[in-house]
Amino acid sequence: MLDPAAARSHAEAGVTGLLGEIGGVGTDPHRGGYTRPVYSPAETDLRDWFVESATRRSLDVDTDRNGIIWAWWNPARAPLTDAVVTGSHLDSVPGGGAFDGPLGVASALVAVDRLNRSGLRPARPLAIAVFPEEEGSRFGVACLGSRLLTGDISPETAARLTDSDRVTFAEAAVKHGLDPRRLGRDDEALGRIGVFVELHVEQGRGLADLGQPVAIGTSILGHGRWRLTITGEGNHAGTTLMSDRRDPMVAAGALITAVREIARARPGARATVGRLVPTPGGTNVIASRVDLWLDVRHRDDAVTGDVVRSVGDRARTIAAAEGCTAELVEESLSRTAHFDAGLNARLGAALPRAPLLATGAGHDAGVLSGHRPAGMLFVRNPTGVSHSPSEHVEPVDAEAGVEALTTVLRDLLTA
Amino acid sequence: MLDPAAARSHAEAGVTGLLGEIGGVGTDPHRGGYTRPVYSPAETDLRDWFVESATRRSLDVDTDRNGIIWAWWNPARAPLTDAVVTGSHLDSVPGGGAFDGPLGVASALVAVDRLNRSGLRPARPLAIAVFPEEEGSRFGVACLGSRLLTGDISPETAARLTDSDRVTFAEAAVKHGLDPRRLGRDDEALGRIGVFVELHVEQGRGLADLGQPVAIGTSILGHGRWRLTITGEGNHAGTTLMSDRRDPMVAAGALITAVREIARARPGARATVGRLVPTPGGTNVIASRVDLWLDVRHRDDAVTGDVVRSVGDRARTIAAAEGCTAELVEESLSRTAHFDAGLNARLGAALPRAPLLATGAGHDAGVLSGHRPAGMLFVRNPTGVSHSPSEHVEPVDAEAGVEALTTVLRDLLTA
Repeated sequence: MLDPAAARSHAEAGVTGLLGEIGGVGTDPHRGGYTRPVYSPAETDLRDWFVESATRRSLDVDTDRNGIIWAWWNPARAPLTDAVVTGSHLDSVPGGGAFDGPLGVASALVAVDRLNRSGLRPARPLAIAVFPEEEGSRFGVACLGSRLLTGDISPETAARLTDSDRVTFAEAAVKHGLDPRRLGRDDEALGRIGVFVELHVEQGRGLADLGQPVAIGTSILGHGRWRLTITGEGNHAGTTLMSDRRDPMVAAGALITAVREIARARPGARATVGRLVPTPGGTNVIASRVDLWLDVRHRDDAVTGDVVRSVGDRARTIAAAEGCTAELVEESLSRTAHFDAGLNARLGAALPRAPLLATGAGHDAGVLSGHRPAGMLFVRNPTGVSHSPSEHVEPVDAEAGVEALTTVLRDLLTA
Repeated sequence: MLDPAAARSHAEAGVTGLLGEIGGVGTDPHRGGYTRPVYSPAETDLRDWFVESATRRSLDVDTDRNGIIWAWWNPARAPLTDAVVTGSHLDSVPGGGAFDGPLGVASALVAVDRLNRSGLRPARPLAIAVFPEEEGSRFGVACLGSRLLTGDISPETAARLTDSDRVTFAEAAVKHGLDPRRLGRDDEALGRIGVFVELHVEQGRGLADLGQPVAIGTSILGHGRWRLTITGEGNHAGTTLMSDRRDPMVAAGALITAVREIARARPGARATVGRLVPTPGGTNVIASRVDLWLDVRHRDDAVTGDVVRSVGDRARTIAAAEGCTAELVEESLSRTAHFDAGLNARLGAALPRAPLLATGAGHDAGVLSGHRPAGMLFVRNPTGVSHSPSEHVEPVDAEAGVEALTTVLRDLLTA
């Protein structure tokens, strides 16, 4: 249990103060913002910081066989079942903001401080969970930790994923004390979760437009990632006539503009190429191959599938016209997730002023919602910009988020 | 002077045998072929190999203040002036072939063996020169060593060049024993060169089409490199509506196809985008910025300039249509180089069956040709493919190249 004086000093620092403790970890001097890929030194430092912060609050900390950290608050020593779970992630996209992930983790710690200080002695346990590789920015599959927990990805597939340095997820897992043979669906850990509520910075302008600080999530757009590989013929940029080329970069260029047109033709669809790697990638070399990654999202899973099929068809046509070939491989796919209606009714009763918002961003809460009652709270982001150093949360809104989370957790714990 | 037995054993290995000695250095398991950027461990190993190979032949080896290695054969102890110089480079593009650069260096070593064995005692000295960063694949400026030697690039500009890890050329130079304050035009070294002849694998199908093993170079197409930076707004790939985007990748895609059309509209022009880097480069992130590099070549320097201006204009128009901005910066520019007419007449007399060939590839001989009489010999490449693992030279053609180089050097040394 927490020392009351320490609890007060932590609580006084608030969520902004807690985030300040990690403000120098994983800063990216070239891109701006933060680059904290899973199991990098930066993300490992953040995991250590979380373990210390939780231990200082007398929470019982445990890392499960999929690398998810669980910090338990269980003053009544209740059985670890039907728990109220909150939390988020600490990894970031390259050049991401300070709030995407850490805001939910820090808000959870402050909420526990407040529940503790209020003298609440709940009959149910509460846990803060920290999920690894939510962004998929290192191994290419978003929400990898929660997908392993639920069995939405097989441990064999996960183990074979590679980062840009060709390190496999299995190798990274070993390096971080996990046993690759023990990765995968964990019914014991999953069974402990009675309900999951994730607080997250909003990644759009919904709350800013409504003039509200906190919203309740309703659904997550179906989304997925695909890798497109266009293969041509590498050659010298100076000696190869334009007419003799089989240049996959030209095909990639045409395809990127086609992706945008395909998405625009389907209302509500979003399709993005944000990552592209030419091989060999020299200025004076016609590329032999270009890999580009496609991110597609739509509320209607059928439309997502239609966009991807259309992009695949166009890729093959465009590549053939350049004497190249194209291949499309699915890396991950999530159907549209609707958060639990009963849970949302309860969140709505606890937070009567909070609007309801759908989101286009994937979250661990979306993966868990296929298995356990799950929901989300969003905190206002004034410009809506995210996955960028410009992502922002005003301290007053961060405080409103903590208050909302504390209210919701208290309500769930006293059910 | 060389031990005759050792000389014979080296000569018997021939140029293919010599290249075999370095066949395991800098292999690239992912791209295929070789990745030997200047001052990388691989290129440093090759430089050490050259120094050992030259020392074993009793050549006097010296590295000048720009990092160019000179190995002197001067049995008559003549003053180091009016020298016959041959040589090439040891660095490669990413995933390059085995011959681009090393063939000229190895052929020069074998030619010295043969001249030595023949009992020739020339009155003029001969040097083999190895130029650093011919490809420009690390610091972005091709022929950086010869440009520093001739003053075609200022030492301040060179010192500030950076590689993809943000290491400056000055930092790399210090690490390799050079003094960045002493970089730059070297009239003493330049003044020693009476004539320069570089042997190089052909980077096109000219000789294959003519059925000949060796050609004499006539000119190098004017060429240059420019960096295009398109700046937009980084944001979340899932939450940002297609209509709200300022996506520099979409602009880059349209621009790449425009580059090809602009080049095609000007007969003989070649324009390539082989390198492209999105920032931050995440799958689920709309890029905030895309850098892409443009390589343009044409026999007529005015056309090269026209292509680049047109690309710059189109870049600004396309970027503006996407709510982005575009900037075009010249990284290097070489005017069309015509090799020395007097020298070429002499090469033609020494090699009466060798056809004359222009090339689209840049070479240190092209940079030197602006300052000293310079020429080139090309050796047949059956498919014409280069800057690729598929680049190839048959052993019989490599031998024909050495014979031609030996003939030419003997002729020049006995002038």
